[in-house]
Amino acid sequence: MEAMTDTQGAEPTGRSARKHQDILAAATEVFLQKGYLGASMDEIAARAAVSKQTVYKHFADKEALFNAIVLGTIDRVTVGIDQAPTRHDPDPADLETRLRAQARALIASIMQPDVLQVRRLIIAEAARFPELGTTWYETGFQRGLASLASFLGDLAEQDSLTIDDPAVAANHLAGLVLWVPVNRAMFCGKHDCFTKKELNDFADGGVDTFLAAYGVKAGGRQRR
Amino acid sequence: MEAMTDTQGAEPTGRSARKHQDILAAATEVFLQKGYLGASMDEIAARAAVSKQTVYKHFADKEALFNAIVLGTIDRVTVGIDQAPTRHDPDPADLETRLRAQARALIASIMQPDVLQVRRLIIAEAARFPELGTTWYETGFQRGLASLASFLGDLAEQDSLTIDDPAVAANHLAGLVLWVPVNRAMFCGKHDCFTKKELNDFADGGVDTFLAAYGVKAGGRQRR
Repeated sequence: MEAMTDTQGAEPTGRSARKHQDILAAATEVFLQKGYLGASMDEIAARAAVSKQTVYKHFADKEALFNAIVLGTIDRVTVGIDQAPTRHDPDPADLETRLRAQARALIASIMQPDVLQVRRLIIAEAARFPELGTTWYETGFQRGLASLASFLGDLAEQDSLTIDDPAVAANHLAGLVLWVPVNRAMFCGKHDCFTKKELNDFADGGVDTFLAAYGVKAGGRQRR
Repeated sequence: MEAMTDTQGAEPTGRSARKHQDILAAATEVFLQKGYLGASMDEIAARAAVSKQTVYKHFADKEALFNAIVLGTIDRVTVGIDQAPTRHDPDPADLETRLRAQARALIASIMQPDVLQVRRLIIAEAARFPELGTTWYETGFQRGLASLASFLGDLAEQDSLTIDDPAVAANHLAGLVLWVPVNRAMFCGKHDCFTKKELNDFADGGVDTFLAAYGVKAGGRQRR
């Protein structure tokens, strides 16, 4: 965090933190519009309404800025998934409510406009920056799935779900809920193309099918 | 198709068609490496080992070339989905075999390296070319889902599956099968990161869960 230290020693932390966020937001926009190669620190500074020196005070170079955007977004998404309402409810009575709350938190985390922007940026630059894309996949995408798997594994231990492999079940729940809305957002270039109710409907519909396949009440899972 | 006509009237159609494909392949690579804005017709011509005049003989401008790449890819993917083995088999006896063949055709179509490249390109450029991304979504992504829905609707009519809404069931089958492999390919920047067996395993695992939820034998669908 040394790069964040105010070398002039005068600016209050709150203002420096705000500038830090302004630079990250401006850089995300410029990267998306110009691509990583076409983006310049000059333009990012202008967009953030700070001097180029201030940008470099916060981030050593363009790559450090790109990394900070990606890693910060991973944190926000995984916190959103981990902290779903009722996730840590010890009472397994209302399985459907708990699953819906988890699925709604999942889709709400990923469908945040700025998260979708970063997702698009990583996909756009993955051929040039395979390490960064792999970091996103392993510490973001897979961490989210692991968090879901842990939740589903707990429900299976409580005899609420019939699950052989929580990791596979987590992949399936995520796919049921996210496939259509995330792809529509990625392809159509709009990041606010669904209402909250529409997102909840995707979550609930995915949970219905998940419960029909994995729910104990639905007769258990008919593995072949 | 006027732009494809050989104005010199000497070149054989086969050679012209081959050049057409070479230009499309070269342009896809250059667009991915440089982004649409950074790509030049000069570089595309050099990569395709043809003259710039030849490029313009086949494609009026850079945008026409980009459009041709996208639309050509849509055709290939949807043909792959529509022509799955056993899809048009009138005998519903082996439901699981038919669903697996369809799911394997779906994943094989989308996970072709050059299809993944075009998918990445559209996502990268969607903010700049929302019309093109929307065309891909509507005539590619949704057409694929509609084709799946038609197949699933037929199976429901044969009493092999319990499906209220074939469109929702198609979304769910696609998500179950594709969520993890497509995202891994998109983020990691590698287009050949799975073996055929691994892809078939994603297809089969998705079909198992789909059948557990929607299969008549599995007790039918327990809608709440």
